[in-house]
Amino acid sequence: MAIQPWEEEANKAKQVLANSIPKQWMVPEDKLPPLEQLNVTEFPGKSGLLTDKELSITQTSATALVAAMGKGELTAEEVVVAFLKRATIGHQLLNFATEFMADDAIARAKELDGHFKKTGKLVGPLHGVPISVKEHIGLKGRICHTGYVAWIKNIAPEDALLVQLLKNAGAVFHVRTNQPQSLMHLDCNNNITGMTVNPYNRKLSPGGSSGGEGASMGFKCAPLGIGTDIGGSIRAPAAFNGAYGLRPTALRNPYDGIILAGDGQESIRCVVGPLAAQSVEDLDLFQKAVLDQEPWDIETSLVAMPWKKVEPKKDITVAIMWDDGVVHPHPPITRGLQFAKEKLQAAGIKVIDWEPFKHDHGWEIVSTLYFPDAAACQRGLIAESGEPLLPLTEWAFSYSKPQPISVTENWEYNVKREKYRADYHALMKERGVDFILSPTYVGVAAALGEPQYWGYTSIWNILDQPCVVFPTGLVQDPAIDKVDETYKPRSETDEREWKKYSPEKFEGAPIAVQLTGKHWHDEETVAAAKMISEIVRA
Amino acid sequence: MAIQPWEEEANKAKQVLANSIPKQWMVPEDKLPPLEQLNVTEFPGKSGLLTDKELSITQTSATALVAAMGKGELTAEEVVVAFLKRATIGHQLLNFATEFMADDAIARAKELDGHFKKTGKLVGPLHGVPISVKEHIGLKGRICHTGYVAWIKNIAPEDALLVQLLKNAGAVFHVRTNQPQSLMHLDCNNNITGMTVNPYNRKLSPGGSSGGEGASMGFKCAPLGIGTDIGGSIRAPAAFNGAYGLRPTALRNPYDGIILAGDGQESIRCVVGPLAAQSVEDLDLFQKAVLDQEPWDIETSLVAMPWKKVEPKKDITVAIMWDDGVVHPHPPITRGLQFAKEKLQAAGIKVIDWEPFKHDHGWEIVSTLYFPDAAACQRGLIAESGEPLLPLTEWAFSYSKPQPISVTENWEYNVKREKYRADYHALMKERGVDFILSPTYVGVAAALGEPQYWGYTSIWNILDQPCVVFPTGLVQDPAIDKVDETYKPRSETDEREWKKYSPEKFEGAPIAVQLTGKHWHDEETVAAAKMISEIVRA
Repeated sequence: MAIQPWEEEANKAKQVLANSIPKQWMVPEDKLPPLEQLNVTEFPGKSGLLTDKELSITQTSATALVAAMGKGELTAEEVVVAFLKRATIGHQLLNFATEFMADDAIARAKELDGHFKKTGKLVGPLHGVPISVKEHIGLKGRICHTGYVAWIKNIAPEDALLVQLLKNAGAVFHVRTNQPQSLMHLDCNNNITGMTVNPYNRKLSPGGSSGGEGASMGFKCAPLGIGTDIGGSIRAPAAFNGAYGLRPTALRNPYDGIILAGDGQESIRCVVGPLAAQSVEDLDLFQKAVLDQEPWDIETSLVAMPWKKVEPKKDITVAIMWDDGVVHPHPPITRGLQFAKEKLQAAGIKVIDWEPFKHDHGWEIVSTLYFPDAAACQRGLIAESGEPLLPLTEWAFSYSKPQPISVTENWEYNVKREKYRADYHALMKERGVDFILSPTYVGVAAALGEPQYWGYTSIWNILDQPCVVFPTGLVQDPAIDKVDETYKPRSETDEREWKKYSPEKFEGAPIAVQLTGKHWHDEETVAAAKMISEIVRA
Repeated sequence: MAIQPWEEEANKAKQVLANSIPKQWMVPEDKLPPLEQLNVTEFPGKSGLLTDKELSITQTSATALVAAMGKGELTAEEVVVAFLKRATIGHQLLNFATEFMADDAIARAKELDGHFKKTGKLVGPLHGVPISVKEHIGLKGRICHTGYVAWIKNIAPEDALLVQLLKNAGAVFHVRTNQPQSLMHLDCNNNITGMTVNPYNRKLSPGGSSGGEGASMGFKCAPLGIGTDIGGSIRAPAAFNGAYGLRPTALRNPYDGIILAGDGQESIRCVVGPLAAQSVEDLDLFQKAVLDQEPWDIETSLVAMPWKKVEPKKDITVAIMWDDGVVHPHPPITRGLQFAKEKLQAAGIKVIDWEPFKHDHGWEIVSTLYFPDAAACQRGLIAESGEPLLPLTEWAFSYSKPQPISVTENWEYNVKREKYRADYHALMKERGVDFILSPTYVGVAAALGEPQYWGYTSIWNILDQPCVVFPTGLVQDPAIDKVDETYKPRSETDEREWKKYSPEKFEGAPIAVQLTGKHWHDEETVAAAKMISEIVRA
């Protein structure tokens, strides 16, 4: 069969990736773990490909790396090279990257080292910290295709504002990461880079849409990454890969220069935020480094709200939402929440149950607002190149009404959304709840191509509440996380999701939870997540 | 001719007004100034209807009244009765009220006095301050028709959140005020209450849409009032009536319970804010009293941004926009700006010229976003009752595209709007400008039924920058403010507006100016306006 024009176009981007991979650090085929080895997280430590120092660097938090560089114990070049080596191996195993930027990253690291040598000072709070970045976040002079073949022709005229600010703070960008077609999957597959897989179990999805970021964090290809989230796209990848992720309240983090189909759609906002491989503290480091630069003085859409210093306090009430009332979570998730509850109670934190409030209503609002134009904009981009529509793209588009809604109907949904937000917030106050601890997803991860239920994450998008996802330290264990034989389906959707679980399928996947705070209380949520994750993981 | 059903309906609201007027304070017909007396601002002082103390109270700022009540020098009842008397006379002369609430106001004042007597303390920062309130701001159990006959059936289920917070702070609501049909005039006429006129010149408009508030401030029927503004509706009335007005940045002041056709339209937001009869300081008092109660914890749409204490500083750069590049202002406005410039320079403030930036482009965006549904929503309400469409309503509707725009087209306008905001802000920074001083309107006021050009106010709505309007202390003088014989029309619109000016027509109208600050810098703008207004008026 002759090659299709869309394939030719896709090959251009594939070639950029192929050319960019640092060949010197690639693992010879015969030294790679066999395909049937599902968990590859231990490979860097066991393969002898990284030195002990490199292994140690790549298992260190950004906060600790900056501290070490500030004392002259590490150079930025050592740090960047260590993560580049690990990322190169990671890409061979997981197919998570869309482009490496090794030469630029090393050159920048040398500059930083020069600055430190000359002045004895770090350039900024992220001096020498390698950050992986989701492909649709613009980098000057590079392709920004956002998962569409039609957009391979897009070359970003400049760095996204967030990237500029992170660079100012000393960060180094070494690798760009994969995302699904249309960005509207909780999976990570497209017609350009293909499917990214999960380092804990290569038959599982790394989540999406920031799936490349998830894999990057899970394999420790960077201490920090940048994802975006309109329905769970930071949080599902963080959860599936045993990493940390923050979905901030909308209009806090700078968004200029991030390319998304349907620009100007404001009823449900896509937000950008950090993922971290090692700790909640690193999420805080990232946020402070960005917001201390007052991005609202450039991007006037943003709210002029500095990142406050907030100390965690034990005098809080955490409510656990065991189930959203729509879809039952799988057994290991329930075990994770139970484990967290016991740890919190033992630490003297007040824990109560959270009765979910109209999550089906929330879903009706958010799913309509994702595609008020009946996904015409996204469908048009797919038609433009002729690339095949992937099943999960079609699935996401099916959320929309069959026909575009009118501006007037859109207004009605905005009104419903505002009322739902105010009601939910009032309920948290009425029940005396500061934070809600809940599943991030129905299961520990989805099998490749299978994630369909967004409810556990998208609910906080429509409510615009800040969330931090963190790993409990537990992993799925087929011997413990058996099928609950007493289960009775609540609905077709519930049954569909339940049937996706079998103990063997998810072996070794990390068990994560999601902590949600109140609208605008991002700092309080991060502070609480830091304390709670430390208690749970202790 | 038989009475139409819409007239019957309108009569219900008229009857509510008629019944509510405090008859005991009405001026006998033969004691009223003759119809040909245009300026009636001196009438309360010369008619002998108010005692000296009442006159003095009604010429005092809210800030000073609260201080006096806090020392026990005045009672809330005295204060409320004084303003009620003045408002009753004002209504006879200006037709500015839609409903009096004398009994409730006096009862509440007595409660406040009781509290003070018992505790020696004021209830809050607005203890005993009478506030007039635009009709479409909901008051529990009262009609809220928003200028539409069809909505006379609307009874507000509770007080608007802003009203609740002001009541908590000790404010007393004594009179509700008129607004135009559809709220989209810079004039004040509807088919229910009819036309409100300007106390400085009864052949002139009090402005709109908060025209009843403008007249209330101009005649000193209250020290503070509440208006709303989506295109100039607080600022034109403040300017036309020699009063003070603040248009805050959107999403700062609580908006719940304010009724507007097209709820859920978020592309260009209507904001609520204070007008003041006496000083900028009173605007600050109002804002602080409201935002200190953290309304964002109830109305989750709002930004969680406390009202900061900001001291005015002299080390600022004020740029004067003499002309918006679209429509030439009338001679007295230019004189007012020139006067302000000289006073500011004499006080050592740096003053430069402001070259306007694409105001025609700004108008194209804002005018499209006012009615993306081609005003179907507003037209439907007018058709529902069968009331006549007033000429200025038709004029406003003509801003819209002939057909409703799609959601996708709306997104494109949102993108244009955000870019324009960011570009304008960047230009202020690039030029080193802190504040822009400009006309509020093409002239000192409009003749009744004549205001058509919104550009000088609506530009700051699309840019979402905070503005304070204040009187220069000058008034139009036919002997000075002659027609400029060198004028050459720039366009049909420019010529139309220019032709509306003749020196005699605007005799005695106050000359006001508008100070605009940067997005979110409401406190800085109010602080600067306080200092600048004091310098200009000194």
